[in-house]
Amino acid sequence: MIVKLYFSPAPVTDAKIRGRFAVVIDVLRASTSICTAVQNGCREIVPVGSTGDAAAMRANLDKGKVLLCGEREGLKVEGFDLGNSPSEYTEEIVREKVLIFASTNGSRAILKCAAAAQTLVGGFVNLSIIAETILNAQKDVAVVCAGRQGNFSLEDTFCGGALIDLLVGSGKYSVDNDAAQVAQMLYKNRDNSIEAVIGRADHARYLKELGFGADIVTAAAVDTVNVVPVLIGNKVVDLQKQRVEGTA
Amino acid sequence: MIVKLYFSPAPVTDAKIRGRFAVVIDVLRASTSICTAVQNGCREIVPVGSTGDAAAMRANLDKGKVLLCGEREGLKVEGFDLGNSPSEYTEEIVREKVLIFASTNGSRAILKCAAAAQTLVGGFVNLSIIAETILNAQKDVAVVCAGRQGNFSLEDTFCGGALIDLLVGSGKYSVDNDAAQVAQMLYKNRDNSIEAVIGRADHARYLKELGFGADIVTAAAVDTVNVVPVLIGNKVVDLQKQRVEGTA
Repeated sequence: MIVKLYFSPAPVTDAKIRGRFAVVIDVLRASTSICTAVQNGCREIVPVGSTGDAAAMRANLDKGKVLLCGEREGLKVEGFDLGNSPSEYTEEIVREKVLIFASTNGSRAILKCAAAAQTLVGGFVNLSIIAETILNAQKDVAVVCAGRQGNFSLEDTFCGGALIDLLVGSGKYSVDNDAAQVAQMLYKNRDNSIEAVIGRADHARYLKELGFGADIVTAAAVDTVNVVPVLIGNKVVDLQKQRVEGTA
Repeated sequence: MIVKLYFSPAPVTDAKIRGRFAVVIDVLRASTSICTAVQNGCREIVPVGSTGDAAAMRANLDKGKVLLCGEREGLKVEGFDLGNSPSEYTEEIVREKVLIFASTNGSRAILKCAAAAQTLVGGFVNLSIIAETILNAQKDVAVVCAGRQGNFSLEDTFCGGALIDLLVGSGKYSVDNDAAQVAQMLYKNRDNSIEAVIGRADHARYLKELGFGADIVTAAAVDTVNVVPVLIGNKVVDLQKQRVEGTA
């Protein structure tokens, strides 16, 4: 099987991902927040393209069950319940809730990948279980980095490289484009800890300025969360629970 | 001073490069061919955006002094004098000639950078003299990778990383975007020779299939050419000769 990587969702088309598994990576911070929310028992996450769409959607839903989540330029949107810091997505707050989720890059990247055989949300926090899920499925893979406003971001490509390194290391996958190769080289030949490498990225420096330095530590920790968020219809849910319900 | 890198010319705007030095890198093969042609004494190289433009331009010029050069999908264009293999740009063939040069990515990348304070053409073949020229000028730098049809290419980013590593190593430059950082990491933490890393790239594999394997060896050799091609007006010329003439 083959694995490709895209530095941003911009070049991704339905044709490029149809029949493949897409793994959407937005390390800082949508992937990390979504994994945390799913781990902490939220009912579902509805990714939307804009904060306006999110607000409009809540108007039609039971306010007690729904949380409006999202950020613009790293900050919580006025009138929203949660921003995009994984520290906000505690069990007390998210359990059984529907999360309408509008982040600048992550939400849009997930929506762009809806045509894939399965669309998974991955980060360092659930790296191994994502790799395991793919290795069990044995499908070609497109790793889609959320990036930053259509541009490359170091942390997403670095995390994509970690995933690719696990897939290639299994002996069952080979890299299929220059970007996948570079991502793997970047991860494999890293000269420092994951946290240190991510900490140098443009967006990490920006988040530190905003006072979100702790989120970088959370996002760089490997396998702290044991769930695979998957897009079913227009909702991101827990893949394991989905399978249990599907077979029940 | 700072150095940024762009994976392709697509995001480059006049505003981003004005007042800076732009270094256009198309390792496979326009940079390598242009450096070779300048070293071998061509009078000037006129980069044009399309093979049609090139053919139209020659119609108005003295045929004995002008060579039509370029490729599409790696191959020489019907009716052109030269393709895009550095091996074709020998002294016998190019000395004192005007080269109208239409390559898929390299020519367009050079044209896109015309607004820079100086637009230099660099590759592994002239790596040190390019770095030296920049360090003498002490200007902010934009490294513009030609890439491949608007996408990332491993070999150009890898070479950009080699240049950035020299600039940063001088203590006078710091990297200023994620792409520049990744390029430097890629080069600095490489696990193999330059030739081996480049040889894995998509475009290198394609060129090998076309029978151009020797060009990869040529393109990966460091400092085999001692010239700095620079864009003056719409022509690429030898920076040293330009200075001599300018002071004469």
